Amino acid sequence: MSLASPVKKGYVRPLDLKHGRVDMGHGAGGRAMAQLISELFAGAFANEHLERGDDAAVLPAPVPGERLVVATDAHVVSPLFFPGGDIGCLSVHGTINDLAVMGARPLYLAASFILEEGFPLAELARIVASMAQASREAGVPVVTGDTKVVEQGKGDGVFITTTGVGALPSGREIGGANARPGDAILVSGTLGDHGMAIMAQRESLAFDSEIASDTAALHGLIAAMLDAVPTIRVLRDPTRGGLATTLNEIATQSGVGMELDEAVIPVQPQVAAACELLGLDPLYVANEGKLIAICPADDADRLLAAMRAHPLGERAARIGTVTADPNAFVQIRTTFGGRRMVDWLSGEQLPRIC
Amino acid sequence: MSLASPVKKGYVRPLDLKHGRVDMGHGAGGRAMAQLISELFAGAFANEHLERGDDAAVLPAPVPGERLVVATDAHVVSPLFFPGGDIGCLSVHGTINDLAVMGARPLYLAASFILEEGFPLAELARIVASMAQASREAGVPVVTGDTKVVEQGKGDGVFITTTGVGALPSGREIGGANARPGDAILVSGTLGDHGMAIMAQRESLAFDSEIASDTAALHGLIAAMLDAVPTIRVLRDPTRGGLATTLNEIATQSGVGMELDEAVIPVQPQVAAACELLGLDPLYVANEGKLIAICPADDADRLLAAMRAHPLGERAARIGTVTADPNAFVQIRTTFGGRRMVDWLSGEQLPRIC
Repeated sequence: MSLASPVKKGYVRPLDLKHGRVDMGHGAGGRAMAQLISELFAGAFANEHLERGDDAAVLPAPVPGERLVVATDAHVVSPLFFPGGDIGCLSVHGTINDLAVMGARPLYLAASFILEEGFPLAELARIVASMAQASREAGVPVVTGDTKVVEQGKGDGVFITTTGVGALPSGREIGGANARPGDAILVSGTLGDHGMAIMAQRESLAFDSEIASDTAALHGLIAAMLDAVPTIRVLRDPTRGGLATTLNEIATQSGVGMELDEAVIPVQPQVAAACELLGLDPLYVANEGKLIAICPADDADRLLAAMRAHPLGERAARIGTVTADPNAFVQIRTTFGGRRMVDWLSGEQLPRIC
Repeated sequence: MSLASPVKKGYVRPLDLKHGRVDMGHGAGGRAMAQLISELFAGAFANEHLERGDDAAVLPAPVPGERLVVATDAHVVSPLFFPGGDIGCLSVHGTINDLAVMGARPLYLAASFILEEGFPLAELARIVASMAQASREAGVPVVTGDTKVVEQGKGDGVFITTTGVGALPSGREIGGANARPGDAILVSGTLGDHGMAIMAQRESLAFDSEIASDTAALHGLIAAMLDAVPTIRVLRDPTRGGLATTLNEIATQSGVGMELDEAVIPVQPQVAAACELLGLDPLYVANEGKLIAICPADDADRLLAAMRAHPLGERAARIGTVTADPNAFVQIRTTFGGRRMVDWLSGEQLPRIC
């Protein structure tokens, strides 16, 4: 079922978007579903592909020589609304970023909704509007979709799976397996903002300055970075598990070690304070608008300058170096002059963060 | 996070696939998640794209001149296992069919899992194995994926969103808006099998002959049909809402009416009996391995022969005619010689059928 299913007008009362709630009929494939789709989704995501009303979108392919890039992400963040964003824009940004960190130009999004019976239609409309706005701002349309409904107590409001399709220019090879000893490691800004925005909301913590999620689409920043430094070897967004886990993944994929310098890793003071309070380490806290970049050391200054020249990279920093280490250990020089291992996240530090 | 995240071996005990259960750590982005992915998913779906371990898959694009086709479907079927299939193979077949009914060659699948805390790993492994087998049999690999975990009582075992990417040959135009007055309407086999298999399981109904889901990938049947009759105008799989709702969608998209002949619409006797018992109409019951085809009347015999020559079309039938009707009414000549309107499904006849 598409997100722009045709429905005969004049048969049914319009949806009550103020007081109405999702019911099981909205997922059953009949008129109620067609109505939900045409009144709530189709207008928000309006584009020629959706409007065809078929079960799949037919789309121009990448230009010859380009490869396809496909990424998918389920979003189950709780709460659904948080300072700086909501599940709607998050689900657009997260998937665009998964394409962009491969060096791909994001082309299309597909969106699949699992709704819980009883969920307020007004909140659903807010989420869909936020998703549509994020999609417009990023220039990446939602071209097809699906809606299912589960009984009350079998879901949690809204889950959204967003799948992205992008095009990768010929010759561009970016990936977690490409880091080499001697390379520089950079981050695009402060760490832990998204995760702590969620946790502060969940724990009802109040701080002097609010912690807002950094959720953002990074393809513009990445395009500027690749323009300046085409030799970038690795890009990745440190989401679940944070910087520490993502660097461990890359170290394992590339078969290299890493040495970080704690003193230069950017963390906002209120995020550091909240982490302290909750016993969390900001290096393990999720980000949704930040990236890690690894490039040859000689290009690092140029890359840093390109990042800082972009609004989403103003607080970029060079935080460490790739080393030769068959154990693929990630280590950090602490601000006290010591040295410790930065291991993978273990356990469930921050469930349902994205 | 990909479905083949790298994990350092030797750090942790292997997953207990016999008695273990999903816990919140399996979704948190750290080592437990990487372990779940490498031990449970990566082996089942093994392919070079997944094995790269990046957050997105890099893939060969369609050949020049072909267009992209993208479809996405959330699967929330309950129960997860049913006669003839399970949520795993269903999620592969359903998405492949959404691509195939556009006339596309399915190329790649992306799979996103939302797991409920406490779900038995043994059942998850069964589902993933079934999904992997369906993917292999169809020749369409799962190239990327994602896993999230929600707390007990916030999900229902497993939800799977499958997104498919296909290639549409130049010049092929199949879609719900293309039906024209005079065209023939065909179906590929018996109706209502999937929905009644689920309902019989849910209601613990026992019949002399078991009702099995028809879940199947239809791209092979469709390729044979297009070889025989390139003039096919509309193809669609009548899933949620069944034949009746799907024909109403097509009638509305094309701005035409339809006249069906009840006597020739194929329904298995045990499905008809179960429908009778539950007060359901097989025309509104979901199918997962059947298709509707609409083609010029002159080509209908050739198309019917091509369908019947394929194992998935043995019981194909020509069931009606497209008419000129600005109201886009779908009507049926009943077996008693009468005539009735076949309206859209209204309400929630069969929730969580796919």
